[in-house]
Amino acid sequence: MKTVRLGLLGCGTVGGGVVRLIRENAANLASRVGAPLEIARVLVRDPSKERVPELSRDKLTTDPSAVLDDPSIDVVIEVLGGVEPARGYVERAIDARRSVVTANKMLLALHGPELVERAVRAGVDLAFEASVGGGIPVIRTLREALTSDHVTRLCGIVNGTSNYILTRMRQDGLSFEAALAEAQAKGYAEADPALDVDGGDAAHKLVVLAMLAFGARVPHDAVYTEGIRDVEPIDHEFAARFGYTVKHLAIGQKHDGHVELRVHPALLPQQATLANVGGVLNAILLEGRALGPCLLSGRGAGDLPTAVSVVADVVDVAGARLNGAAGLMTRSVRFEDTRLAPIDDAQCAYYLRFQVFDRPGVLANIAGALAEENVSILEMVQRGGGDSRGEPVQVVMMTHIAREGDLRRALTSIADGDDVAKPTRLLRVAPIA
Amino acid sequence: MKTVRLGLLGCGTVGGGVVRLIRENAANLASRVGAPLEIARVLVRDPSKERVPELSRDKLTTDPSAVLDDPSIDVVIEVLGGVEPARGYVERAIDARRSVVTANKMLLALHGPELVERAVRAGVDLAFEASVGGGIPVIRTLREALTSDHVTRLCGIVNGTSNYILTRMRQDGLSFEAALAEAQAKGYAEADPALDVDGGDAAHKLVVLAMLAFGARVPHDAVYTEGIRDVEPIDHEFAARFGYTVKHLAIGQKHDGHVELRVHPALLPQQATLANVGGVLNAILLEGRALGPCLLSGRGAGDLPTAVSVVADVVDVAGARLNGAAGLMTRSVRFEDTRLAPIDDAQCAYYLRFQVFDRPGVLANIAGALAEENVSILEMVQRGGGDSRGEPVQVVMMTHIAREGDLRRALTSIADGDDVAKPTRLLRVAPIA
Repeated sequence: MKTVRLGLLGCGTVGGGVVRLIRENAANLASRVGAPLEIARVLVRDPSKERVPELSRDKLTTDPSAVLDDPSIDVVIEVLGGVEPARGYVERAIDARRSVVTANKMLLALHGPELVERAVRAGVDLAFEASVGGGIPVIRTLREALTSDHVTRLCGIVNGTSNYILTRMRQDGLSFEAALAEAQAKGYAEADPALDVDGGDAAHKLVVLAMLAFGARVPHDAVYTEGIRDVEPIDHEFAARFGYTVKHLAIGQKHDGHVELRVHPALLPQQATLANVGGVLNAILLEGRALGPCLLSGRGAGDLPTAVSVVADVVDVAGARLNGAAGLMTRSVRFEDTRLAPIDDAQCAYYLRFQVFDRPGVLANIAGALAEENVSILEMVQRGGGDSRGEPVQVVMMTHIAREGDLRRALTSIADGDDVAKPTRLLRVAPIA
Repeated sequence: MKTVRLGLLGCGTVGGGVVRLIRENAANLASRVGAPLEIARVLVRDPSKERVPELSRDKLTTDPSAVLDDPSIDVVIEVLGGVEPARGYVERAIDARRSVVTANKMLLALHGPELVERAVRAGVDLAFEASVGGGIPVIRTLREALTSDHVTRLCGIVNGTSNYILTRMRQDGLSFEAALAEAQAKGYAEADPALDVDGGDAAHKLVVLAMLAFGARVPHDAVYTEGIRDVEPIDHEFAARFGYTVKHLAIGQKHDGHVELRVHPALLPQQATLANVGGVLNAILLEGRALGPCLLSGRGAGDLPTAVSVVADVVDVAGARLNGAAGLMTRSVRFEDTRLAPIDDAQCAYYLRFQVFDRPGVLANIAGALAEENVSILEMVQRGGGDSRGEPVQVVMMTHIAREGDLRRALTSIADGDDVAKPTRLLRVAPIA
């Protein structure tokens, strides 16, 4: 019987997990694929290192060509991470007509469309379930379950680090700094947390999701991106008072040939399912025209959940290859001419926290400036003031749905006056119930 | 180019949705499958009826043989519902070596394993994503994403009617009867709601899920099943007081060669994601050994969500058939020798609401009877009593984890005494965080 020969690029913790799962479930996998899977060759940095699970020394190589130029390899699995040299390896594998499975979100976010098109030209598959949402089968759902549907919106908690920090701030009143330090101590956040807490990682994932959901071809740095550094404990308190929970969301919507992509902290109604996805968990809500809402949640990272997704992809592409159907999965990605809507065109309800001097007329000035730009106020609370310590008064407003450009003009005009003691905090309300 | 010819059994609302989705997405689907899909023949009751979408009269037939015995049909789609004649038709289609897609949960619950084995013998596929959870891709996830993992537990809200009723009772204090009447008025519940509110429908779905998750071959009437008729508004109140929400759950767990399957109302921590799945939505939490928790949620019923799932299955089995890979998907269901654990062996924490006469010694008697059987009390509240109206006192206890058999012996002994004014209400705490 033919075997499907796998070449593994990288054998760190995810790669090790892939090896382990493929070995432990060999019979199941062979039955599903139609032939046994064989880990034929593994690119490593140090072949002398002890590995669990053990790999026989003759499979290990430090030479990428030993994997990429071996004509007997059917499927290349890339779990190196980072853009280079992963990108070059993946391109070489595709050009040599091998199907590729990758867990590399950065690579997909930066070069997804061109790699997909390269794979289509070569008639092979490029599978990347593990690149977004770890063990959550969101790519599979977008690609397969929705073959006959149109996604109109997606909304996700896609960065576990940020979700952990916001959860700790909300539940236990920690400051951002304290929650971040805790996340670092627990290994949930990197020493340099910028990519996570400033939203870049979420923007990468949103670009990958939008490629599948909307056929959008969007540079990752064109996504409107805000992180969570400016969310203060007091914002969690006020949000709760209005019945909301603050989460860091990646939001994609398609309307009238425009795609709107934005990553920022947002208010979700407390009883919304997404609002109750806590800790390091991830969750993605898809809304399909026919399907309605579909929420997928689980571990967004972690070696084994990620390895489960990699192996599921291996099964798909190996099976397709064996049956002469390679490339079909990847050909189903349809790029469309999409214009990215500027953030000024976004329409949301807003949470606005003004920090103003305690004196007569301030509220009238703010309300007047908002009204001037057609931003209408739904609810308001005020805290502080009336003492002599000179602390600013916190005036928090929830608005009706407004156009962001209008709101920003109003805020500029308010900031230009002399009522405001500290910068105004703006949080958007998520477009879901 | 070859086309894949589809025979449709039934053309009600789901069938109509399938026709519409296949037409509207013809190009996408053809690209995904590798050949165009053609709706070749449709079994209907009344060919003269006007249909949206329109079907040309020569495709319609009232004769099942015109679909089942047509050798040019590649895939048979069964959307008739009910066990007979659907079962006979599906068997005939399988025996004639056609792949079958069905949305029929009752058929799967009653005859799933034998139909799966029949399909394996014939070397064709039997796909049934739409049979559980409407548009939620839970079957796909169990079957594909978890190919390399082992499911240890599943826990789901799989009956939208019950979930709607419990949601209305909890949020607005409605009685069961009032909430049911409202659900019926809104079309969420049948005129005869027994299958939904007594848990039978959930038990059917659990049997299908357990077949995939655990390889279990369990008669649907062997599943321990309780419905929601006995949950009273006061139980929602007390549950909330202890920090819980009452949901109707289908629970499956595998341990030591035993499978535990039970359907009953259960207490979930208020902040648990599943606790916040409201209204008619469904949700299923899978726990995989490697994957960790994975929650899938969405519309559990409805014509279009169900049709989306049917079409996703059609794409899979049509593609497999075209590529000579028919049967692989279905062969991956692995039946195991599983013993069903009796409910007495279940281990949970419990909510117990005693309705007792207001007199000295009652609490001591209850506590004593529980202690006698090693059931230990975690928290307790008491309400009522002290008035002269003779209303029973409500004594509500949350227990530590106990063996159900032990607890039942204690409850029998308490019921045998003369302290209890009305039957004791027992609710289990769900085995998830």
